[in-house]
Amino acid sequence: MSFLDRIAECNAHDLAHFRPFVVGGTKVGWVTPARAARLARFGAVFDVRDDAVELDPGLATFDSRSAALARVVAELAAERAITGVRDEFYPVTTAWEAPPLAKIERAAVPHFGLRAWGIHMTGFVRGPGGIAIWVPRRARDRPTYPGELDNTVAGGQAFGLGFVENLVKECAEEASIPEALARRAVAVGCISYCVETADGLKPDMQICFDLELPPDFTPASEDGEHESFELWPAAKAMERVATTRDFKFNCNLVLIDFFVRHGLISPDEPGYAEICRGLRR
Amino acid sequence: MSFLDRIAECNAHDLAHFRPFVVGGTKVGWVTPARAARLARFGAVFDVRDDAVELDPGLATFDSRSAALARVVAELAAERAITGVRDEFYPVTTAWEAPPLAKIERAAVPHFGLRAWGIHMTGFVRGPGGIAIWVPRRARDRPTYPGELDNTVAGGQAFGLGFVENLVKECAEEASIPEALARRAVAVGCISYCVETADGLKPDMQICFDLELPPDFTPASEDGEHESFELWPAAKAMERVATTRDFKFNCNLVLIDFFVRHGLISPDEPGYAEICRGLRR
Repeated sequence: MSFLDRIAECNAHDLAHFRPFVVGGTKVGWVTPARAARLARFGAVFDVRDDAVELDPGLATFDSRSAALARVVAELAAERAITGVRDEFYPVTTAWEAPPLAKIERAAVPHFGLRAWGIHMTGFVRGPGGIAIWVPRRARDRPTYPGELDNTVAGGQAFGLGFVENLVKECAEEASIPEALARRAVAVGCISYCVETADGLKPDMQICFDLELPPDFTPASEDGEHESFELWPAAKAMERVATTRDFKFNCNLVLIDFFVRHGLISPDEPGYAEICRGLRR
Repeated sequence: MSFLDRIAECNAHDLAHFRPFVVGGTKVGWVTPARAARLARFGAVFDVRDDAVELDPGLATFDSRSAALARVVAELAAERAITGVRDEFYPVTTAWEAPPLAKIERAAVPHFGLRAWGIHMTGFVRGPGGIAIWVPRRARDRPTYPGELDNTVAGGQAFGLGFVENLVKECAEEASIPEALARRAVAVGCISYCVETADGLKPDMQICFDLELPPDFTPASEDGEHESFELWPAAKAMERVATTRDFKFNCNLVLIDFFVRHGLISPDEPGYAEICRGLRR
């Protein structure tokens, strides 16, 4: 059952390659030794030790920590150690509902191995042949994951926005789904994973939504993030997820969770329980 | 959010109270020191050490291990150290799809801290007021969990049966659901937990099913396991799960998973991600 391969790919990491990143006394992320050495050159902003990298404990407030991190990120971006800065901020925290310790530029989140949150929605249609799923392809000119297949709607979760409000916003921008229709989306759980990438560690959590779309509705990109949308029979999506890496890595988990919840994988298939548990690490 | 209390109760255990139980070179369970001391009196059947209890490695086959365990269980049952023997066998294994190392009487499974599998189904109706759930109450004369609220259909997974076949069988026995209707049930994932009980450790895995029932169908017990069935608005079930221990302990997790998958809990509620992850340990 190669769904387990996709799950394993999203969880390929070795924490021995990283040191904990501590903010306000809490371990919130993971930094490589090479990045830690670079951070040491910011003087008092970081206490860089062999066992951890700690943001100056003297920075005791959300605002002072956020300002210090912003100065660091600006300098790292100027050196191209961080790319893709877009002035969108993520919270620095271990639990979404906890008061964040700081905010940080989205593009810097993996650099510090911070947890990112996001929303991923599967738009689908029920027909006589069963369930069909709307599958977009990311535009070739995108800086991240160009040309890869994607979930119908997906987006990072910026600081200060609710998950449902973010979904409604992304539905409009990414798929031209009107608000009244987007609000019919059903939150169905979450997937989580932890993967080591060239940008750093990504111990992320994605809130999943299902939206049954009317048969006569065709999604279309408003913001140019996707070049096309195709309606695929569920069996085609299952085969593609199981046998290829055509989908953006974490979209595979969202689709596998969809397949599980809609009874498209038999519990008598070998590996069923391992798949269910593997979707949330 | 007290759904997290129910999840914590299903995961209350301390492995420091147990020693690994090893069969065929594989850690398959957990035994208390008191039970280990009793097992030492079976002579060569067990190698009882401070760090583990091992079934005699000389027992190299499924049949020889199963026969040795059956003799032990019979003696422990005669001493009332194991109660409720019903000549129903569970596999001794760590993964359902792996060839089992042995089989063992169901009533002895927690004694050795072996993983048990089962199936739990939520029968529900969609009406103008939203989703309503069929909730049975266990008969007061049952040996296990008398008088507690239960999932619509639930049963342990005996050796050699498929999950779907078991569900169909239990649907008939526990709720008088005809086979054609039972086969419409949708497998929707699994929940797992690990709880320490007076009978031993229960590191169990339950396969979950949803079945949308016709509005004119009323479940009824065939086998006397339940004294009554009531159709509850989902909100009533949510309130009862969140604020009481009226449901059999693991049924709470199956219902919380149902609430999550059907969008009955907002992702903007504090603890949402922790709930989703807590359902599979």
